[in-house]
Amino acid sequence: MAQTDTSFSNRRQKLAAQLPEQQVDAMLVTHLTHVRYLTGFSGSNGALLLSGDLFATMATDGRYTTQIAEEVPDIEAITGRAVGPALLATVEAPLRVGFEADYVSVSQLDKLKEETPEGIDLVPVTGVIEKIRLVKDAAELDGLTQVAQLASDALEACLDAGEVAIGRTERQVAADLEYRMRVAGAERVSFDTIVASGPNSAKPHHGAGDRVLASGDIVTIDYGAHVDGFNSDCTRTFVLGEVGEFAREIYELVLKSQEAGVKAAVPGASLVDVDAACRDIIKEAGYGEYFVHSTGHGIGLDVHEAPYAATTGSGELKPGMTLTIEPGVYVPGKGGVRIEDTLIITEGAPEVITTLPKQLRVL
Amino acid sequence: MAQTDTSFSNRRQKLAAQLPEQQVDAMLVTHLTHVRYLTGFSGSNGALLLSGDLFATMATDGRYTTQIAEEVPDIEAITGRAVGPALLATVEAPLRVGFEADYVSVSQLDKLKEETPEGIDLVPVTGVIEKIRLVKDAAELDGLTQVAQLASDALEACLDAGEVAIGRTERQVAADLEYRMRVAGAERVSFDTIVASGPNSAKPHHGAGDRVLASGDIVTIDYGAHVDGFNSDCTRTFVLGEVGEFAREIYELVLKSQEAGVKAAVPGASLVDVDAACRDIIKEAGYGEYFVHSTGHGIGLDVHEAPYAATTGSGELKPGMTLTIEPGVYVPGKGGVRIEDTLIITEGAPEVITTLPKQLRVL
Repeated sequence: MAQTDTSFSNRRQKLAAQLPEQQVDAMLVTHLTHVRYLTGFSGSNGALLLSGDLFATMATDGRYTTQIAEEVPDIEAITGRAVGPALLATVEAPLRVGFEADYVSVSQLDKLKEETPEGIDLVPVTGVIEKIRLVKDAAELDGLTQVAQLASDALEACLDAGEVAIGRTERQVAADLEYRMRVAGAERVSFDTIVASGPNSAKPHHGAGDRVLASGDIVTIDYGAHVDGFNSDCTRTFVLGEVGEFAREIYELVLKSQEAGVKAAVPGASLVDVDAACRDIIKEAGYGEYFVHSTGHGIGLDVHEAPYAATTGSGELKPGMTLTIEPGVYVPGKGGVRIEDTLIITEGAPEVITTLPKQLRVL
Repeated sequence: MAQTDTSFSNRRQKLAAQLPEQQVDAMLVTHLTHVRYLTGFSGSNGALLLSGDLFATMATDGRYTTQIAEEVPDIEAITGRAVGPALLATVEAPLRVGFEADYVSVSQLDKLKEETPEGIDLVPVTGVIEKIRLVKDAAELDGLTQVAQLASDALEACLDAGEVAIGRTERQVAADLEYRMRVAGAERVSFDTIVASGPNSAKPHHGAGDRVLASGDIVTIDYGAHVDGFNSDCTRTFVLGEVGEFAREIYELVLKSQEAGVKAAVPGASLVDVDAACRDIIKEAGYGEYFVHSTGHGIGLDVHEAPYAATTGSGELKPGMTLTIEPGVYVPGKGGVRIEDTLIITEGAPEVITTLPKQLRVL
């Protein structure tokens, strides 16, 4: 199901219900990701003012007057370059208006204050919309599943076409994969594609450079697509030509760890325990010091968002959350392996929306 | 010439020279674009503390300790997840430390304050580094020229290969162009590629959708590449098959306007006058109401940065600045044309670094 006006108004209802606890009468939403989440507006300049009784007004500039009318037919929009001040000028004192303190800069707050009428109190609010975003609705889960499928199909097609192969550069492989996603409908990549080959596979944050893929290489591909606001994130690791003993050992280890993480991702599981499910297996095999990052993160309108499966994680999983499970082992000078799926947490076993096979594939 | 340690230390020297006027003893630089500009560090978490006597310290987290040592050999880096507070913990009171109020969120400032030792004053500073960035140094101009050339070559190759053609979709054209840039060394696009065909050409902010290119179409392609921190930006408009009277008329008009803008972009010219040089020609032809945006913008580490050639522009051009000249005419329902070059302002006539021909090309 696609996102509808009802998806957006349901989300606004959830936000409005949170306002009393925040001790504000209305919320000024200026973070564009949140404006889009709550209204469907996808332009690059816009804001939403939402009152506790669900009265909504938007603002955008002259470039987007037609677009906002099409994308958000159910909310009146005013036109002004400075969208925050334009909205605050429409309210009557006395009123307590929350603003997004995590995204409004110190300078922007100064400008907002200058334009705010007497008797309007601006109140910093943090984490409220993020908390609502934690559990995805059906339209979001559908969008996320579709973009994950698009990305899975693109890598599968690259593999089938022999594009991940000895003699090609990391950059060529990345370009081919991105091209396939783009033609299939991706607006862009969700983050810079990683194609980390040979010794580069030991660097978790390697990009895609000029190294030529060689026989015996481990090749880690971590990539994603962006469609209609939604992001995908998936990692697969391959071996080229001959599979060395080290490569096979850590591949099997990371796969075992990753599968344990997927199994642990059920409602009620603490995020710390999900991390431990992956980490303990790697530790027990003596590679604990080489698993240098967290186990996973939520994904939605942002590529990285709460919840976080980490040793420092907090809270527990609920149905409708998303989570990546992406353990890795990186041994400097020798190579590394990471395997990553994106999951939707359900009442039972999680739904894995990154559908590429995970058994070791030798190319 | 590539950027060297000297490029970066020269920039830091310029910043340090501005600190007395800002009434601060040191500057905490947290905006990543500015951290990169001043140090060369390209990671996703880092900060720089620079004192008026040029003493510099950096901070990053554990993922980037190797990278920061390689990229910034001349500055000591400490390790900490919260890079701002980590740096502030190293200073001795009393001290006035400037922070980047345009980029630090209200929440981030609260956290900085919590961690700041007694006797350290945090002072909001705005626009100082931007002002230094206005005039590019030789290494920057070289980087910008190279990425503009890469992008020009990529579109030329698309045209030569017949990839902008009747029967193809806007998305396919965009994908081909992006692929060519990527393979040639672009890390990513500098912004979402615009391929606006037929009636879509009348929308200045159209993306690249599923419309199939048809005979008689105007096709506007606005695109750029990103390499090593630097961005390119160029627009060319083509006609497919038969050239209609309207298309020819507005193409010749916009080209005349664009050439007048390039000619006007000399040292000492006010940004308002550069805008007027383009706008007056379009106004005189009776299309003034259809030129719905500004004439141009600077480009460097950001795709859009000062100076701005606009009716509301301020200041004047100096050698070493960059500027796009991109007038357009957009008639709803009929179509539109935009032609854009990126210029480097020199002592004489500007250097046009987007080298594709501008005469009307019929495909």
